[in-house]
Amino acid sequence: MSSKSAKHAVGIDFGGTSVKLALVGDQGKIHSRATIATRKLTSRAAWFDAVEAGLEQLRSRGKMDLFGKGFSGIGVGVPGFVDFERGYVHDLPNVPGWTGVHLAKDLEERFNVRAYIDNDVNAMALGECTFGTGRLYEHAVFVAMGTGVGGALLIHNKLYRGAHSMAGEIGHVPIKMDGGRSPLGRGALEQYVGNQRIIERAVRAIRKGHPTTILKKAGGDLDAITPKEIAEAAAEGDQLGIEIFDFVANCMATALTGVIYLLQPQVIVIGGGVAQSGDVLFGPLERHLEDRLKPVFGDLVSILPARLGKDAGVIGSATLALLS
Amino acid sequence: MSSKSAKHAVGIDFGGTSVKLALVGDQGKIHSRATIATRKLTSRAAWFDAVEAGLEQLRSRGKMDLFGKGFSGIGVGVPGFVDFERGYVHDLPNVPGWTGVHLAKDLEERFNVRAYIDNDVNAMALGECTFGTGRLYEHAVFVAMGTGVGGALLIHNKLYRGAHSMAGEIGHVPIKMDGGRSPLGRGALEQYVGNQRIIERAVRAIRKGHPTTILKKAGGDLDAITPKEIAEAAAEGDQLGIEIFDFVANCMATALTGVIYLLQPQVIVIGGGVAQSGDVLFGPLERHLEDRLKPVFGDLVSILPARLGKDAGVIGSATLALLS
Repeated sequence: MSSKSAKHAVGIDFGGTSVKLALVGDQGKIHSRATIATRKLTSRAAWFDAVEAGLEQLRSRGKMDLFGKGFSGIGVGVPGFVDFERGYVHDLPNVPGWTGVHLAKDLEERFNVRAYIDNDVNAMALGECTFGTGRLYEHAVFVAMGTGVGGALLIHNKLYRGAHSMAGEIGHVPIKMDGGRSPLGRGALEQYVGNQRIIERAVRAIRKGHPTTILKKAGGDLDAITPKEIAEAAAEGDQLGIEIFDFVANCMATALTGVIYLLQPQVIVIGGGVAQSGDVLFGPLERHLEDRLKPVFGDLVSILPARLGKDAGVIGSATLALLS
Repeated sequence: MSSKSAKHAVGIDFGGTSVKLALVGDQGKIHSRATIATRKLTSRAAWFDAVEAGLEQLRSRGKMDLFGKGFSGIGVGVPGFVDFERGYVHDLPNVPGWTGVHLAKDLEERFNVRAYIDNDVNAMALGECTFGTGRLYEHAVFVAMGTGVGGALLIHNKLYRGAHSMAGEIGHVPIKMDGGRSPLGRGALEQYVGNQRIIERAVRAIRKGHPTTILKKAGGDLDAITPKEIAEAAAEGDQLGIEIFDFVANCMATALTGVIYLLQPQVIVIGGGVAQSGDVLFGPLERHLEDRLKPVFGDLVSILPARLGKDAGVIGSATLALLS
């Protein structure tokens, strides 16, 4: 363990069914963790109580002086629109009750520490680019594939947040001009490759009688299918699985072609659950990108998987504080 | 006229049928101009001779000491892929004979002055953002609508060129995943809204017997139709003209939606020939953007026409030198 005065910070992953916390050192290493189950994310009071319980656990477990010398503060990644400078949450589209919240100020008042708030994908990207795959690059685009598709931009080694702190929303980039409508636009990437959309494609094909091993992998239960079973089937040569991942990769390649022509990053780092599918995704993704990009653009960009895996959220959130 | 030692530079617009040069002062004002006709742009020797003749004209006309005190150098905007740092032309897609040229070095050796090379749209954007519409903004996206659709990004008041100096290619952003192929990709914006594509839409409809005033405006000559006649007809209520500009605006809005979700600029500045169509373009563009963007994004970005008009090329090219 590093010396007691080395820089460290607490990263908090806002969470779906639980709030995850970790004490993270200045090399991106996790020193201790806490996970507090909470079913009432929509209640801000319950969320703050969960954070308090989590901090208490970290304090009791850690050999490090939690809020003492070298402590950089708390960083929180939240699933939605945030003003980083003001530590303000505009809106969390999937979590009612969190519109217009001065979250950094509230945390600072309650726990008497510096607090930093950002979009969860921005936080993950910052972690990946500081301690993971992106750390050797000056210009990177980070994509997180999960329930939705998030993104973040690293420009000259710094997270680029745009004029109002909401840049990087690659999931809302249109790939089909005349595609279906959603509250955020028309024909956006996220309408085709979010987890639920991927699952729906498999379920629809299975219902139509398409031969596949996906259903068996999910224990014969249509409701139990996740992208993981589809990826496993694809990896074993299942035709439906391969077709679904080819479609996902083609959608991703369409949006990323636009990103690459616009920003010309050195690397695109792909994280999140679906990205853990490995070659099943990355193989067709590289093929479709090659097909869509002028070689002088395609040859100059690397497509790499993220490295921090499930820890990306807490490490990235802590990085918000470590770098501030 | 400003004092003889005030900063000034020569801007050179690579040109289509002529090379345009201007001596530009540090407030973006043009002090003198020269235009040298050249039909052999593909011959580098002929192009350099045209530049020499143009510089001679500027020298003889100007009251300013052309290469003397306060002279910042020569800036050139070229229609293609450039490495700004090295002053190197990778490739000009529409001008054979200009692949792999150390243009800055060649100019410096021949004329004994500092020379700066950039993509012509980057140069125009820099001019607009330094002396035109964009000068009040820190984060701007510049779009030039002409034969193709060019783009440039201003981030923290500086032109952002990407990892390899080729960023900002908004014309190549896909708007239709399954759209037609071109050497640069599939279903890209430029395949739908370049000048020639706009004209083709009008000609096709006229051939099918669509009632319109466009043909009359072009003197009854199908080959004489340009976007200008289509815009004039639309402004007077011609249904075909309105439909064509609505389609162009919708294509632009699709690509710009992606740009805005990715970069969240404060302003999008639209220049180039077609952009001079005014409300006929900007009206439907704003409507389609509103339709496609989440309000928190749409309300925070301005869409503005460029101001420098036909001088954007030479002023922007000079700005490359003025700012260096």
